Amino acid sequence: MTPRPPLRCLRCTRPAEGFDGCRACAAEGIGVNTMPPLADLAGVDLAAYPGGPWGLPTALPVSGPPVTLGEGNTPCIRLRMDPDPAQDGHPVGELWLKYEGGNPTGSHKDRAMAVGVAAAVAAGADTVVAASSGNAGAAAAAYAARAGLRCVVFTNEAVPAGLRAQIDALGAERRVHPGTTGERNSAMARAVEEHHWYPLTSYSSPSPGGNPYANEGYKSVAYELARDFSGRRLDAVVVPTSRADLLAGIGRGFRELAAAGLMAQEPRLVAAEPSASAPFTAALRRPDRAEQERTRVTHGPTVAFSLGEERPCWQGLDALWRSAGSAVAADDDAIMAEHRRLAAEGLILEPSSAVGSAVARDLARTPGALVVAIGTATGLKGLAG
Amino acid sequence: MTPRPPLRCLRCTRPAEGFDGCRACAAEGIGVNTMPPLADLAGVDLAAYPGGPWGLPTALPVSGPPVTLGEGNTPCIRLRMDPDPAQDGHPVGELWLKYEGGNPTGSHKDRAMAVGVAAAVAAGADTVVAASSGNAGAAAAAYAARAGLRCVVFTNEAVPAGLRAQIDALGAERRVHPGTTGERNSAMARAVEEHHWYPLTSYSSPSPGGNPYANEGYKSVAYELARDFSGRRLDAVVVPTSRADLLAGIGRGFRELAAAGLMAQEPRLVAAEPSASAPFTAALRRPDRAEQERTRVTHGPTVAFSLGEERPCWQGLDALWRSAGSAVAADDDAIMAEHRRLAAEGLILEPSSAVGSAVARDLARTPGALVVAIGTATGLKGLAG
Repeated sequence: MTPRPPLRCLRCTRPAEGFDGCRACAAEGIGVNTMPPLADLAGVDLAAYPGGPWGLPTALPVSGPPVTLGEGNTPCIRLRMDPDPAQDGHPVGELWLKYEGGNPTGSHKDRAMAVGVAAAVAAGADTVVAASSGNAGAAAAAYAARAGLRCVVFTNEAVPAGLRAQIDALGAERRVHPGTTGERNSAMARAVEEHHWYPLTSYSSPSPGGNPYANEGYKSVAYELARDFSGRRLDAVVVPTSRADLLAGIGRGFRELAAAGLMAQEPRLVAAEPSASAPFTAALRRPDRAEQERTRVTHGPTVAFSLGEERPCWQGLDALWRSAGSAVAADDDAIMAEHRRLAAEGLILEPSSAVGSAVARDLARTPGALVVAIGTATGLKGLAG
Repeated sequence: MTPRPPLRCLRCTRPAEGFDGCRACAAEGIGVNTMPPLADLAGVDLAAYPGGPWGLPTALPVSGPPVTLGEGNTPCIRLRMDPDPAQDGHPVGELWLKYEGGNPTGSHKDRAMAVGVAAAVAAGADTVVAASSGNAGAAAAAYAARAGLRCVVFTNEAVPAGLRAQIDALGAERRVHPGTTGERNSAMARAVEEHHWYPLTSYSSPSPGGNPYANEGYKSVAYELARDFSGRRLDAVVVPTSRADLLAGIGRGFRELAAAGLMAQEPRLVAAEPSASAPFTAALRRPDRAEQERTRVTHGPTVAFSLGEERPCWQGLDALWRSAGSAVAADDDAIMAEHRRLAAEGLILEPSSAVGSAVARDLARTPGALVVAIGTATGLKGLAG
């Protein structure tokens, strides 16, 4: 399947042949996504932007009709900041949580899958396929159902019960693949090749990240933040990061806004990772980019079950480099402490989401700082599991 | 606790002495809520209304600071309408679902509890209390946590596992009361009297409906619909109904909009009920209002577990009378068929919410009709239970 509109490697600019990232860079051991050009936002009136990926359809690489369940336009909630015991009486900055759990299937993935399924429809696909042990599978199932496409989700046995039930209720075919994530992805790769199913998630190794068209749906997070914090300088946006689809999408959105004069200064992006699996944190400790992009870490179990990669997807490094950003890891104790702190303020998120606000909370201690953490997914799915 | 600002009985206009509805009307066997005056929306620019109860704070009876978790401003999603087999080839109307499951705790109750908890703070309360076997308890717990108040939730043993876990995670004290709903409510009534806890839900018999200030949060559903369907005539808004807090709140919102010239014609309101427990449907079959307000039905078990009353709360009758509305019951088979139809379109709602779109789907068969069903709560909580 040749991608339309054309995609180019973010790193070496070669044109893409399929949806499995840049093969030339993969041969160097580096997983790099291929993307369409940035959109031109000149003339856009942000104050009138209604939010969500389809609120600015011209910024998307899809020409067909929208596929939507009302995703996006999620609220920003100001979190309480405890005074810093080490700096008694000192003022602290502002910490906000953008609550993506309010999306129709309960996570940020809806922004991507809305666009990815619309791209699949435009490509004439009758079946979409995702490899996911979590929220991406549920979102793929929902939007495929919405568009009337068949959906196959490759999972492994670690899928939490609530998510499994959600995928099933949405009518997707769930194929449980025993063995490693690599083996699961290989099964998906064979299905894409043999049946010409339309791939909505990453399936090659090293992973380049998810479907490029789908990922453009994440730019809407940046547009919404720019609209909602209009006139204020956002210091940092902290993103729970695994393959960096969301991080890279937000970064692209900010770059488009800045290029069109709609944002004076792009915020610093911060990748928040669980310590048990923190390739970006490890990469950015290395002295030069050639070493950073070839980083490999061991991946251990973590309460943040939605996150975990061995290598930093290049699209994420690119986003961090361009925004003078950073990567910070939090251990499971810190993640669960933040999870409880959010619940004590009325918000139940996935532990994977609490990684973001755990990291952001530290950054927001600086007086005058304005920091936003992306709260990627609701914790409701796991409650009775 | 004397309510501030003052409340008056909707039916006999006597002033309220507490939060247990109108005692004079209760002596007649009729549960009637006491409410503040309608708000004056003159001069409001609906196009600039950001949604949610706090988007128009002057329309609320609370003077203190907002308590918010980003509730409201939920999306409207156009549903597919199957052609009517009985009317082959005929055009059909439009059916939309307002998806309240996107609220922070997953249901419309957040709109009320945000305002109710702010009213509790303004009243100087340190503890709020709710009697609920479902979403109201979770919402009360979340907003109490947000405001730093203690929250006690009286439940019975029928609470689904997901909801129970949600209430616990949010730090509320859950008191499981064996026995009937009436006995549970009596326990809450004693607590309100003895400890001066601030009541967020109904607890007297016959039930007048929930806390009047909290209920004013539901007006925001009407404001959002008027904004989002600006310039079009909404024929009917269909509301899953038990004690009619949501129904009455939406009706009040539309009346305010019409009085201020912000809406040419108020939509017809339709109470959607499970057949196993359908007091409004039974009431409206009776010839005169004196009989309607004294209707009593038997209440059987239903898949729509969030719904079920023996009597029509007077606030709901009032809303239906004023809007020339109606009440329609759907049986469990129809509810579950609609539940599956929504899932086949990508949406997982509580069965109690599917009552609304099941009833609305029939109304939308009329060519040219524009019908909105309120999808009150996400189905994610029940999935793994």
